[in-house]
Amino acid sequence: MQEFPITRAPASKPKPDPKTLVFGKTFTDHMFLMNYETGKGWHDGRIVPYGPIPMEPCAMVLHYAQEVFEGLKAYRSPDGGVQLFRPMENALRLKSSCERLCIPAIDPQTVVDAITQLVRLEADWVPSEPGTSLYIRPFVFATDPSLGVHASHTYLFAIICSPVGAYYAEGINPVRIYVEDEDVRAVKGGTGFTKCGGNYAASIRASERAEEQGYAQVLWLDGVHRKYIEEVGSMNVMFQVDGTVITPTLTGSVLPGITRKSCLELLKSWGVPCEERLITAQELFDAAEAGKLEEAWGTGTAAVISPIGEMGWEGRHVVVNGGEIGALTHKLYDTITGIQWGTIPDPYGWTVKVC
Amino acid sequence: MQEFPITRAPASKPKPDPKTLVFGKTFTDHMFLMNYETGKGWHDGRIVPYGPIPMEPCAMVLHYAQEVFEGLKAYRSPDGGVQLFRPMENALRLKSSCERLCIPAIDPQTVVDAITQLVRLEADWVPSEPGTSLYIRPFVFATDPSLGVHASHTYLFAIICSPVGAYYAEGINPVRIYVEDEDVRAVKGGTGFTKCGGNYAASIRASERAEEQGYAQVLWLDGVHRKYIEEVGSMNVMFQVDGTVITPTLTGSVLPGITRKSCLELLKSWGVPCEERLITAQELFDAAEAGKLEEAWGTGTAAVISPIGEMGWEGRHVVVNGGEIGALTHKLYDTITGIQWGTIPDPYGWTVKVC
Ligand SMILES: Cc1ncc(COP(=O)(O)O)c(C=O)c1O
Ligand SMILES: Cc1ncc(COP(=O)(O)O)c(C=O)c1O
Repeated sequence: MQEFPITRAPASKPKPDPKTLVFGKTFTDHMFLMNYETGKGWHDGRIVPYGPIPMEPCAMVLHYAQEVFEGLKAYRSPDGGVQLFRPMENALRLKSSCERLCIPAIDPQTVVDAITQLVRLEADWVPSEPGTSLYIRPFVFATDPSLGVHASHTYLFAIICSPVGAYYAEGINPVRIYVEDEDVRAVKGGTGFTKCGGNYAASIRASERAEEQGYAQVLWLDGVHRKYIEEVGSMNVMFQVDGTVITPTLTGSVLPGITRKSCLELLKSWGVPCEERLITAQELFDAAEAGKLEEAWGTGTAAVISPIGEMGWEGRHVVVNGGEIGALTHKLYDTITGIQWGTIPDPYGWTVKVC
Repeated sequence: MQEFPITRAPASKPKPDPKTLVFGKTFTDHMFLMNYETGKGWHDGRIVPYGPIPMEPCAMVLHYAQEVFEGLKAYRSPDGGVQLFRPMENALRLKSSCERLCIPAIDPQTVVDAITQLVRLEADWVPSEPGTSLYIRPFVFATDPSLGVHASHTYLFAIICSPVGAYYAEGINPVRIYVEDEDVRAVKGGTGFTKCGGNYAASIRASERAEEQGYAQVLWLDGVHRKYIEEVGSMNVMFQVDGTVITPTLTGSVLPGITRKSCLELLKSWGVPCEERLITAQELFDAAEAGKLEEAWGTGTAAVISPIGEMGWEGRHVVVNGGEIGALTHKLYDTITGIQWGTIPDPYGWTVKVC
């Protein structure tokens, strides 16, 4: 494993109360930084005290959003150790995001090594209350001090860490979602399969409108036909219809989620029939109205599994599984979180011990 | 006019040689800043020395690209004065960009006042060599120190200025362009009608591929049907076919360019028939091959008018007007630049004297 030089923070900040952690607002004592420069490549990987980064007002990222990120977590296991969940998958997705955005890719093993070393240093920051974890945010952005629209010649890769609370502190409550038919998050040929900033900026308005109407999330339709379901909020989405699990296929505008991939692998190992294919909102609502939609849930690193209890679309309104979390949804949640927190065995080799 | 407090730079930087100015790399002595905070609104507008802005690593703009910008120029007129070209149009477009991105809009008159006061202070930086100008870049970005995906509660609005060289220092040379049929810049329901960073990030790969193949710009197709022409590079596009000027209509994925609008207003005042409508690549190449495509050009603040000399699409290759700039293209260029630099009268009231 590569080891990067560490400049230690003069003092450790007080740890927040693990019972009242808010997502992504408190950060640990250190961060990882690495620079890129044309000709020199990625260089000078280092761990330094967490703190502000001086930014030129003309830095490309502030104008043309040449930026990508990742998100994963470190979990406290019952033996007191700390482990990561499929970090190489995040490193590989970061590479694919970089390629689409013309950002020089970072060697995936280097990304995993940097994450590992940083989390090891910050191990005290990994909370141990049930359901809590340390959220890890690797991100890359363009720093050229120039307003020309082209790929930057300089970049900064950073990793910051934030202790986060239990997503379902009050028990899992299925959410209400609605089909967005005006705004589009991503389109084939665009950047939907990447974790680039622009996708998220484009999605904010619809999420706000959904919230105003009492919905927790937006069910996104594809940008071309406006009829195929793509994702729910910032999660992938799955439906159990007539015993088969169906999920939108990765067409280029859908993010290849690591929780999605893990769910599909689990479901297949359990012998549950799965289909990755195009699904229209029409088909989904018809199935629901015919009583064939048994369960529905979102998948993502933050919530792991987010059951869907109600769905609205063009005046149609359906309740899924009586608004209760379904058996398969629950089994997926228990299995993935069990593996992540190390409370059940990991026969898939998904977890990586950090310390 | 609102006046903002000024903190002067201790010394003025040396001015760059106006003969070798590179776009967007040199900045003036001062910048304008204004903050937003929920509850307080936009406040604390001020002019301060140009310099780095400290940025939290978790600042929303670096992750979710909640950012928009504008671009306009200040021109040195023959009487030694300085003038702007339709700055209120930029302020209104900034408002519309902000609204789509859920950024609290800034009063357009405040934006124009801030630009005016800053340019007046930096008047020495407006170069006077033929064709040179001071490029003005207003931009807004989300600064919340939080990783939750939602609209930020805090923002920074900044204006920076950069002296720029003559776009056509060596005379106007028509460019070669090609139709991009893989990557998509923008889609209806997305953010194409705004100047948000994500649109530009998504466009870089295609521009790089075009350059590798010896083309100057990409001709973008719409993201839904992949057949309608939208823009060329970071410019709007116009074609003269059989005596009529046609330009893509503003469908939501096309930027409403101020140069485009000015061209249409001029053409109408000259009695040239104009059509804003959908145009397929098929129609365009058919017209070219039938000898009916008389002229083609891009429009934008940077180049003003950029004649198109050759176009490639799916193995088809057409030359426009023998690869020479056409008469109408030239007349538009001369008229708009004449008005901008104050060498001909401005009967439209487009220019605004700053000093
Ligand atoms: C748009 C979007 N879709 C889906 C996901 C789920 O991906 P993962 O399971 O890798 O967290 C995410 C990230 O969490 C996302 O941002
Ligand atoms: C994508 C895009 N299209 C068109 C234009 C032209 O707009 P304007 O004429 O207002 O400069 C610009 C900006 O220059 C642009 O960035």
